[in-house]
Amino acid sequence: MSTNGLVCFTNCLLPQEDGGLLEKDLWIDERRGVILDSQLTFFERRERPDRIIDLGGNILSPGLIDIQINGAYGFDFSVYDGNDDAYKQGMKLVAEKIVETGVTSLVPTIITQEKSLYPKILDLLRPFSTPTSASLLGWHAEGPFIDMAKRGAHAPPFLLSAPDGFRSFESAYGAHNLVDSEDWLMSADGQCGVRIITGAPEIKGVMGALNELSKRGIVFSIGHSIASSDIATAAVMQGARLITHLFNAMPQLHHRDPSIIGLLGASPHLSAPSAADSFSSASPTAASAISGITSEAFDYQSSPGSPVKPGMSRAGSRSELHLDKGQVADMAFSRPYYDMIVDGIHSHPNSVRLAYSAFPDGCILITDAMKILDPNLRDGVHEWRDGKRFVKEGDKLYLEGTSTLAGSVVTLDKCIRNFSRFTGCSLGEAIKCATFNPAKCLGIEDRKGTLRPGADADLVVLDRQGNLVSTWVRGRQVWGKAD
Amino acid sequence: MSTNGLVCFTNCLLPQEDGGLLEKDLWIDERRGVILDSQLTFFERRERPDRIIDLGGNILSPGLIDIQINGAYGFDFSVYDGNDDAYKQGMKLVAEKIVETGVTSLVPTIITQEKSLYPKILDLLRPFSTPTSASLLGWHAEGPFIDMAKRGAHAPPFLLSAPDGFRSFESAYGAHNLVDSEDWLMSADGQCGVRIITGAPEIKGVMGALNELSKRGIVFSIGHSIASSDIATAAVMQGARLITHLFNAMPQLHHRDPSIIGLLGASPHLSAPSAADSFSSASPTAASAISGITSEAFDYQSSPGSPVKPGMSRAGSRSELHLDKGQVADMAFSRPYYDMIVDGIHSHPNSVRLAYSAFPDGCILITDAMKILDPNLRDGVHEWRDGKRFVKEGDKLYLEGTSTLAGSVVTLDKCIRNFSRFTGCSLGEAIKCATFNPAKCLGIEDRKGTLRPGADADLVVLDRQGNLVSTWVRGRQVWGKAD
Repeated sequence: MSTNGLVCFTNCLLPQEDGGLLEKDLWIDERRGVILDSQLTFFERRERPDRIIDLGGNILSPGLIDIQINGAYGFDFSVYDGNDDAYKQGMKLVAEKIVETGVTSLVPTIITQEKSLYPKILDLLRPFSTPTSASLLGWHAEGPFIDMAKRGAHAPPFLLSAPDGFRSFESAYGAHNLVDSEDWLMSADGQCGVRIITGAPEIKGVMGALNELSKRGIVFSIGHSIASSDIATAAVMQGARLITHLFNAMPQLHHRDPSIIGLLGASPHLSAPSAADSFSSASPTAASAISGITSEAFDYQSSPGSPVKPGMSRAGSRSELHLDKGQVADMAFSRPYYDMIVDGIHSHPNSVRLAYSAFPDGCILITDAMKILDPNLRDGVHEWRDGKRFVKEGDKLYLEGTSTLAGSVVTLDKCIRNFSRFTGCSLGEAIKCATFNPAKCLGIEDRKGTLRPGADADLVVLDRQGNLVSTWVRGRQVWGKAD
Repeated sequence: MSTNGLVCFTNCLLPQEDGGLLEKDLWIDERRGVILDSQLTFFERRERPDRIIDLGGNILSPGLIDIQINGAYGFDFSVYDGNDDAYKQGMKLVAEKIVETGVTSLVPTIITQEKSLYPKILDLLRPFSTPTSASLLGWHAEGPFIDMAKRGAHAPPFLLSAPDGFRSFESAYGAHNLVDSEDWLMSADGQCGVRIITGAPEIKGVMGALNELSKRGIVFSIGHSIASSDIATAAVMQGARLITHLFNAMPQLHHRDPSIIGLLGASPHLSAPSAADSFSSASPTAASAISGITSEAFDYQSSPGSPVKPGMSRAGSRSELHLDKGQVADMAFSRPYYDMIVDGIHSHPNSVRLAYSAFPDGCILITDAMKILDPNLRDGVHEWRDGKRFVKEGDKLYLEGTSTLAGSVVTLDKCIRNFSRFTGCSLGEAIKCATFNPAKCLGIEDRKGTLRPGADADLVVLDRQGNLVSTWVRGRQVWGKAD
């Protein structure tokens, strides 16, 4: 047995943070479950490994990170029936089985809930793992502050606006669930689990909450939204850091108002008022939209060009942002991350490549998988919830009796292979989009999605075609492909 | 006076073909009007210049090339009233005055005409220049084979389909106007002037003509079209080489069928049938669309998903392409060039940057200017033709009484400055999009849009902010900024 717990992986390619693949050994400490500095360990400390594992030229990647996943193996993170233990069992089930898809970290995502259910579910959705499971990193709430016009499968009666700004967010999710915790990552001991909130910045009160969310380390992601270019730009300046399932549940790219998708083409220097003024568009520019008030708080008015539709009183009312020019000058602009479901169904390969070529470093692969995700599941009709049923056809998933796509059943390792084929990028570059980029978006790139010394030894071995060979969590192999 | 006619420009930055700016001298022979190899001239032949021109650190660029311009200074290339001399005077007027905008080469563009006018106008629109003028390089016919659904300002009764393929093109423009001429560039002596044809590949018969057009060195440009991704891809495989005013007069980018705009994200390897098969889209893939027939000629069927609209019998009928798989395998795919009107009006800066970042080497700046283009013209209402009038407001131009944009009045030098600001690219990179890229698209990059030895000494001097200082054609200064 091990004496020092040191393992050296050899004859392998290591994905680099720039997307390259480098032939190099990797050392880990399997007892502490962390990656080691091989230079320090081997050359300076002159330690010898207990085990040398020859990977036969395969790729040794950081474990994959899925920041949007609704469920898997029959368990739906969005369904809570009052039984805490059953829910926890579901979390455990997903965490332990998902490793067969190469995923070692995930952010369970819940869609819009009836208000009373949020605190209950979110209290349970804390960081969680077992010794042989992937890590649940906390929760991603998709809704309820989304736009009626782009609600997708979200239940209209549960959508909300945020008239009290951040306090409305506290009211919806529970104030204790939005607490800023210092080292939330591995703390399964009752710490707060908030990671990502997907919302529509044009919904009343949302824009005014972004700064506070951002301060607390919460990733606000623009999604299920019809934000104009100006509103979307302002949201990013206020701290929005991500775009949820790019292309889906948002306006198509209109060349005169490219909206959320257009953020991938936004220039930092153009988002400042003086430069924006020089864009003499027929529509209001960011500069003209971001002007006129002097109050410290954000103020909203109905946009004259966007009449409020009937039945949208609770959510979905359009608003136009008015910021003081001085405030704008202090705001930083950098393009947000964006995630995509690269299953070959949600977006055409050309669209995927357009987005990626516009902003490679912002690209994140997600599955947005539904509870029926299970690599071994047969095609056919499956139960969902509320009496609704899904039809699964390969990687295609839609509501029975409709052509409405509703999430997906693709696995993240397949998204990597699709992505490389669709964009022509290397496997190393595709892997980066499912490891380093999501980790960086969450601010955890020292611990997850990386091979940096000190990071968790969550690893996947892939062959040169990107097919999974084995999965390791915190230094231990937890899954291997059957021969 | 000159003894050897050699001029050396010094203390200047030269735009490179990779978009860089290099501090370097440029030698020209002002008598022959060509650029010299300075290495050969100075170091090997040890020649001395008659004149040394110190440009004070300014940029010495190839002259600008505008491949889509409808008119200027009151003359409209599309208006022919039966008087050949008057028309020729108009050509001369534009050619001589346009140099004040830095343009030294242009492709006069005519919009859809009544059929009998084509041969008359095109017979006149041959390559043309005077000793002090820009070069008219031939003609760009925008229409009549365009789609009713995206006709813009084109007259519906004059739109045509091409039931006889290439013969329909000959019939429309005149067979002698589509002749393949070896060295068309500077031959004003009755040679054929065809350069670019903008059309919609989904129009009956157009796809089948592309190969022949391509063989004759004619640039087919996809525009005023609603081509699906599959049709657009097939058109490129058949030889389409350009996209006309990207974003305008085409479908918005739909992520599941990104259509013409999506070509900027197309991967060569995905356009082959085997790879396209692996994109399991709900819509037909390029592979499935390009299959099923074995006849050598192209065959068209009405697409079931795209019913022919009433009143579209002459043009605008949708069709679906069926090619033999063997044919497809032989076809090359590389992404087409695309031109954009970067006036800050026709497309939002974010859209411009998205396109450019997806495919920088394909980007071409055009003015698409109307006859009222004149840098000195005042804002207000102006006559156009057929009793219609335009309103000019700065760089904005629309039909009186409507909000329909109709061409532009921006100058090409201003497009360069806009483009650099919108995309964040360097002036050198922006200049490339108005010089080298259009020249390459036309296949004349040895003669125009370049500083290569042997190329025409068509030059513009710009200051470091991109403002015009002077314009030179074939070695002679023809315009200079008033101090």
